[in-house]
Amino acid sequence: MGLTAENHGKIKRVAIVGGTHGNEWTGVYLIKKFERSPELLRRSNFETFTLLANPRAWEINRRYVDRDLNRCFRREDLEHPNSDIYEIQRSQWIASQWGPQSPSPVDTIIDLHSSTAHMGLTLIWVKNNAFNRQVTAYLKSIFPEINIYSWIESESEPANPSLKSLSNYGFSIEVGPIAPGMLDAALFLKAEKVIYAILDYIEKYNRGEIIHSDRTLTIYQFIKQIDYPRTATGELAAMIHPQLQGRDYQQLNPGDPMFLQFDGTTIYYQGETPVWPIFINEAAYYEKAIAMIFTEPQTLIINN
Amino acid sequence: MGLTAENHGKIKRVAIVGGTHGNEWTGVYLIKKFERSPELLRRSNFETFTLLANPRAWEINRRYVDRDLNRCFRREDLEHPNSDIYEIQRSQWIASQWGPQSPSPVDTIIDLHSSTAHMGLTLIWVKNNAFNRQVTAYLKSIFPEINIYSWIESESEPANPSLKSLSNYGFSIEVGPIAPGMLDAALFLKAEKVIYAILDYIEKYNRGEIIHSDRTLTIYQFIKQIDYPRTATGELAAMIHPQLQGRDYQQLNPGDPMFLQFDGTTIYYQGETPVWPIFINEAAYYEKAIAMIFTEPQTLIINN
Repeated sequence: MGLTAENHGKIKRVAIVGGTHGNEWTGVYLIKKFERSPELLRRSNFETFTLLANPRAWEINRRYVDRDLNRCFRREDLEHPNSDIYEIQRSQWIASQWGPQSPSPVDTIIDLHSSTAHMGLTLIWVKNNAFNRQVTAYLKSIFPEINIYSWIESESEPANPSLKSLSNYGFSIEVGPIAPGMLDAALFLKAEKVIYAILDYIEKYNRGEIIHSDRTLTIYQFIKQIDYPRTATGELAAMIHPQLQGRDYQQLNPGDPMFLQFDGTTIYYQGETPVWPIFINEAAYYEKAIAMIFTEPQTLIINN
Repeated sequence: MGLTAENHGKIKRVAIVGGTHGNEWTGVYLIKKFERSPELLRRSNFETFTLLANPRAWEINRRYVDRDLNRCFRREDLEHPNSDIYEIQRSQWIASQWGPQSPSPVDTIIDLHSSTAHMGLTLIWVKNNAFNRQVTAYLKSIFPEINIYSWIESESEPANPSLKSLSNYGFSIEVGPIAPGMLDAALFLKAEKVIYAILDYIEKYNRGEIIHSDRTLTIYQFIKQIDYPRTATGELAAMIHPQLQGRDYQQLNPGDPMFLQFDGTTIYYQGETPVWPIFINEAAYYEKAIAMIFTEPQTLIINN
């Protein structure tokens, strides 16, 4: 039998967030649309809230003002008594509105992002629980092209630093490829449809109408981050190899081309087992020392 | 008979410029490569210089610090006695090194750019003279996929504000689509090959070895800039229509979809004759109020 509100409690408050990164316009303009037309989000048995998470970064069309807001939800940040970092002030304010210690916590946070990598339509999990598994299985049945990336680095590290970690049932929607500071209508429409499908799912879930038969779900589990080859002074020494560019979620085998040095020399993947890279060539990750993220597919059986 | 050094004077000094926009990394990293390996640019009968044009914008990974450097080469900017705008200081310095009034002017400036639009490999002319026509015809014979955009708004307006306008025989190389602040190896390699081909051409030209038979060349001539539909307060009211996105250099006919409003309504192209839009959805052009640039193809006969 599926997870339903009958056996797990209803979802009462859902938050949809855009502009956690101020230059990712897909989420920003979806939030603007929803704030202009709140009836689009209205359902019968729960409340939905919207938030432009980093308005100052949006004003200056940059990812962040002082620090990546989506890494500012660690306990030490949320409990910092007097930070002068704008994004920490902001994470504290968001937690005060919606966090588990707030007077009115939300059950689910859906955080809208975009990437220069070929992420297609990706759901990013930071928690693997029954609700997230089932809503994902439901979305996958409607949008078979959706990929699921499980950004759970370690079960022993519950303090994920991302905004969605404030809620029990939170995840991100990532779309790409798209450059920062622009809109792509096809990706905008896709992300919009996914949001409506999630809200429809929650409405049925709250009514106890969700009965899943057992089914399988493939997720891509985080293994590790890979940086670019760099010079002794930290400068880039290579680019993503043309044969790897755009091949997110595809198998990379030992010996396959991975980077191209500026002198034309290829660097090959030297691991002993295949990996499935994602976030290949995400522009915002150069400064984070991430050229791509290695994942491996796992098959889950969804039955609870 | 073709234009050669015998009948028009030799090209003595060539400048290759990257990072006129600090977040367009293709040009920046090509310049870094050339400065590390100057032998790549060395030819027998002319000198080649390189320049990272806007180093402060590159340091902060932004298009510009105060103002778009590629619009700072109007006479009033170059003659401004005491500007506190970084890019005007910079345009004056570049003009003092290479401009027509400098002790050692360059004959040709090749300015490297990238775009989020599907520009492929584009040469941008700001002057239509025999040298530019012939080098373009030569490049087109090697790289048939090259497009030529003629950014000559009016013959009566000789004061083009772009960096390359400092030289008689200057043009830009534009590659895309690529987001700002990242590298795409395939586009990097393409731009690099075009530069070597230009240098090889100039070497032959100086030797009087260039003899063209008559041939035709299609160029896309600037007609006008088109902004996004906007609200009364100037906010975006629509996106590029999915059916137009990525279709740079393709014919747009009266009645074809052009924009998609956020409520789902399509806005159609209302002109009376076809146009060929380019720079469709260039991220840096939202703030310039440019959604795309209308052009029309013209066929030139290259015989001088």
